[in-house]
Amino acid sequence: MKLGRVIGTVVATTQVEGLEGVKFLLVQPLDKTRKPSGQAIVAADGVAMAGPDDLVYYVSSREASLALPNTFVPVDDAIVGLVDAVELTTP
Amino acid sequence: MKLGRVIGTVVATTQVEGLEGVKFLLVQPLDKTRKPSGQAIVAADGVAMAGPDDLVYYVSSREASLALPNTFVPVDDAIVGLVDAVELTTP
Amino acid sequence: MKLGRVIGTVVATTQVEGLEGVKFLLVQPLDKTRKPSGQAIVAADGVAMAGPDDLVYYVSSREASLALPNTFVPVDDAIVGLVDAVELTTP
Amino acid sequence: MKLGRVIGTVVATTQVEGLEGVKFLLVQPLDKTRKPSGQAIVAADGVAMAGPDDLVYYVSSREASLALPNTFVPVDDAIVGLVDAVELTTP
Amino acid sequence: MKLGRVIGTVVATTQVEGLEGVKFLLVQPLDKTRKPSGQAIVAADGVAMAGPDDLVYYVSSREASLALPNTFVPVDDAIVGLVDAVELTTP
Repeated sequence: MKLGRVIGTVVATTQVEGLEGVKFLLVQPLDKTRKPSGQAIVAADGVAMAGPDDLVYYVSSREASLALPNTFVPVDDAIVGLVDAVELTTP
Repeated sequence: MKLGRVIGTVVATTQVEGLEGVKFLLVQPLDKTRKPSGQAIVAADGVAMAGPDDLVYYVSSREASLALPNTFVPVDDAIVGLVDAVELTTP
Repeated sequence: MKLGRVIGTVVATTQVEGLEGVKFLLVQPLDKTRKPSGQAIVAADGVAMAGPDDLVYYVSSREASLALPNTFVPVDDAIVGLVDAVELTTP
Repeated sequence: MKLGRVIGTVVATTQVEGLEGVKFLLVQPLDKTRKPSGQAIVAADGVAMAGPDDLVYYVSSREASLALPNTFVPVDDAIVGLVDAVELTTP
Repeated sequence: MKLGRVIGTVVATTQVEGLEGVKFLLVQPLDKTRKPSGQAIVAADGVAMAGPDDLVYYVSSREASLALPNTFVPVDDAIVGLVDAVELTTP
């Protein structure tokens, strides 16, 4: 999983079957010090509670659909948790 | 999923079984400000409505075939939605 | 899927079970203007017709084995089509 | 699999169903000489024994969930072993 | 699949269930001219015959476990063949 921050919403009315009702958010990947790193991705909101500026962790690839009510859909990035804290053991 | 723009069409008459009738498009990945980023990929058209210059989002890897009528085919990039708008929450 | 060009053949007599008779080719990934881009990969020949210098498109990861007669094999890159033409819609 | 070192803990109370009780650690990927290389990732602790500063190897993508008691969960990075030694054959 | 060379052995006594008896090797990815390229990875030895300095090709991601006797294990890199020769068709 990777750390990310929600930076936007994607609006799409024409989609493949099975994706109706799924919220898609624009997520900026972060490094361990929470600085932006790499390209923003479009992730399905698996916790259904993520909002603007939230710190989240998300899965990529096939298993992302397991975070959704309908698991047999073409989704490859999904938010699976809202992060409360990251404790570094080595500074 | 990633944001991309349709920039071309791929014509292939010799294919593995199961891919007959599937439209393949050349898609340029975009960053969050919609600037081209990285190499163009060949994606199956899962919505069957994508055309030149369309802004789309697409899945990569195994689950891409779930966007097609025949899901048991070797396809690893598929367009799953046409994007109407991207709303950034952080400027 | 990605565009590539066949640049060589890989000869391997010691392999895991299930790969007997599968042809492995060295494929150079190409960008949208067909210039080499990134490292060459070893791909199984799913169309069984690819030869030297052929322009092809290939799948990566798990679904690659779906392009082979025996689909339950450890293969993660496979050629799935010979490309006749790439038509760019934006120059 | 890749070599990594445990550098922190991720605390998340809001998660998708099925991830309750799974420990998530921040892992820094290492190169063959054990120098940090690339971005830290969030990995589930499959051995349930990994702690701060441990040298581990971890899997990425779909098969990561196979390292957990509940295998049908959206997890794509998991620690699968604690490394005792790495013996290089070529200096 | 990718070309690589065996450069070391990984010793790990604490592992997830199912990995007992599997040999893990440190493999350096190579480019088409057999020069090192990218970070070394930890691969399961699917052919059970790979040794120091061997030229191999290996699979990444989920299908890697198909190269092992027990296929339902969290392994994402596995050696699937020993390479006898690579014949380049374009110099």
